Amino acid sequence: MQTIKTRAAVAWEAGKPLSIEEVDLMPPQKGEVLVKIIATGVCHTDAYTLSGDDPEGLFPAILGHEGAGIVEAVGEGVSLVEVGDHVIPLYTAECGKCKFCLSGKTNLCQAIRATQGQGLMPDGTTRFSKDGKPIYHYMGTSTFAEHTVVPEIALAKIPKEAPLEKVCLLGCGVTTGMGAVTNAAKVKEGDTVAVFGLGGIGLSVLIGARMAKAGRIIAIDINEDKFETAKQLGATDVVNPKDYDKPIQEVIVDMTEGGVDYSFECIGNVNVMRSALECCHKGWGESIIIGVAGAGQEISTRPFQLVTGRVWRGTAFGGVKGRSQLPDYVQRYMDGEFELDTFITHTMGLEDINKAFDLMHEGKSIRSVVHF
Amino acid sequence: MQTIKTRAAVAWEAGKPLSIEEVDLMPPQKGEVLVKIIATGVCHTDAYTLSGDDPEGLFPAILGHEGAGIVEAVGEGVSLVEVGDHVIPLYTAECGKCKFCLSGKTNLCQAIRATQGQGLMPDGTTRFSKDGKPIYHYMGTSTFAEHTVVPEIALAKIPKEAPLEKVCLLGCGVTTGMGAVTNAAKVKEGDTVAVFGLGGIGLSVLIGARMAKAGRIIAIDINEDKFETAKQLGATDVVNPKDYDKPIQEVIVDMTEGGVDYSFECIGNVNVMRSALECCHKGWGESIIIGVAGAGQEISTRPFQLVTGRVWRGTAFGGVKGRSQLPDYVQRYMDGEFELDTFITHTMGLEDINKAFDLMHEGKSIRSVVHF
Repeated sequence: MQTIKTRAAVAWEAGKPLSIEEVDLMPPQKGEVLVKIIATGVCHTDAYTLSGDDPEGLFPAILGHEGAGIVEAVGEGVSLVEVGDHVIPLYTAECGKCKFCLSGKTNLCQAIRATQGQGLMPDGTTRFSKDGKPIYHYMGTSTFAEHTVVPEIALAKIPKEAPLEKVCLLGCGVTTGMGAVTNAAKVKEGDTVAVFGLGGIGLSVLIGARMAKAGRIIAIDINEDKFETAKQLGATDVVNPKDYDKPIQEVIVDMTEGGVDYSFECIGNVNVMRSALECCHKGWGESIIIGVAGAGQEISTRPFQLVTGRVWRGTAFGGVKGRSQLPDYVQRYMDGEFELDTFITHTMGLEDINKAFDLMHEGKSIRSVVHF
Repeated sequence: MQTIKTRAAVAWEAGKPLSIEEVDLMPPQKGEVLVKIIATGVCHTDAYTLSGDDPEGLFPAILGHEGAGIVEAVGEGVSLVEVGDHVIPLYTAECGKCKFCLSGKTNLCQAIRATQGQGLMPDGTTRFSKDGKPIYHYMGTSTFAEHTVVPEIALAKIPKEAPLEKVCLLGCGVTTGMGAVTNAAKVKEGDTVAVFGLGGIGLSVLIGARMAKAGRIIAIDINEDKFETAKQLGATDVVNPKDYDKPIQEVIVDMTEGGVDYSFECIGNVNVMRSALECCHKGWGESIIIGVAGAGQEISTRPFQLVTGRVWRGTAFGGVKGRSQLPDYVQRYMDGEFELDTFITHTMGLEDINKAFDLMHEGKSIRSVVHF
């Protein structure tokens, strides 16, 4: 195999629009796989990195981490997938062999974490380049390219019948929200739940909470435009903090006679994280942080909140193990257990990907999906 | 029954020594019990309130919350104990009927919480007085008196064979530490544990961790005088943060190849609480706050610590339900599963109780036990 040309949206520098161009892509090396991306969602995390606020952001890079595609070639020794397999690239790999995978307690496989964080493949180099200049990978996935190279341990093999332009959303947002309900919170029938922030993650938490048969599901946002969708997906109450003079945690505690069993922060705002904790029921309420806060920001509360029985935890990718558990999410979607159309407010070709960022910044989209 | 005279250590005002004198004690009212206190430990929480730093501290009051005694009389309708029963007064009652008791998830019974916090019996009055002036109860127990009145739901009935001058320590510190290991952390065989602060609570955590068969038990304190006792009680490693230039959480992470499974903060220092969280293992480590922080102080960390799988929780009275579970702790002590003598560094009569506070402030005691 030789280096191929592929069309990609390149982030040459922070704060600038992506540039659509042909880049060079080296063939997959040992343990790597060449994937033809069929569709990719555009997520807030892509926007966060592109903005330059992400201290770990590297440029130039090919962003994108919510994609789905088809295996087009495999490198030496690849045994987990074969050409023609349908796959979702995983920003949280699953090697099955590291201390983390073997623990049975977490999905945070560390096998390729270090190089992934440096925008590199596990061998310490990049596959993308332009005019001989390396272009960094992003989250190990770089799905804003028609073709990408991914380690085989970072690919979930999914049924070929699954519509890639929909289930790409299971590569990040929807799984993150649904998984947080199941794996981090373990919501049970009849539990009371509060969801802070009604973007893609928050809406996915609503779906998860409804599937877990939560009794009361309180959806909270300062943008009331989102309330109709929230109700459709399962919210039993919608609350706009701006309607109240007192702190939102007090509002929720009053509404629920003492607080919720579980709360979810789906924004990345450290003040909201505090509210989410403090609206939990004394004695047992648990708050799950899903949103990603800005660099250097900290959460705070009085320790009394914890000593009196509240629990503060967080989750990444909903605690879902990509290779072993994500295919089940795809199957459940195909079985009609939940839908994804509500999330896909816009679709576009790669050439229009910058519009996806504009729509997001304007609060007009849940997800834009780019079709290649 | 009539009002009796009893000898008590009265805290007339914050920051002043206790005054030993005879006070008036009204007979137990409906649902209340008159207890003759045989022995009481002197705990840091008593000192905290006496200092005036406790914003909820009320004066004049009779402090003390780590006692044991014998039922001397019962009020109307009392059915849970009878005259002659040996009991440990509970600052966390167990009514068995409130939302909290019925939840099965917490020991934080709220039945009498409001009046208890106001230094009053459930009917909103005090039983103690001097020259007609009411003296507040403290934590619902007021064990620094030869006789005290306690609601029946705030008494654990224990075997008559139990030595009251020892098992009084199970009324607070020792149970708090041991219970935190079992109920909040659920330490399992082979787990790695870090214990911050080697006072009575921290040492009790060591006992609990050893009984849970933790694999490695790291005891941390800046006072190396405590290390010998810590080792006797089960610590496999002792660490003085002053021996290192880098933050103690980094030291512990390095020592344990990634962090501990469980950490316990047994001091009440919000900076140590942060260290205790951050020395936990990525993916699954849990930190339990036991210490009581100063008024208005807050804990902080980067949310990334939680998003990457650490859990922050706390516990009061070790999560132990006083009436239903504390008797079992007493039985286990009597069965020789653990010892209490190590904790009792000093004993004294009530007239010398101020010495107990001096010894505590000088760091010379683990527990002083006052014998009546």
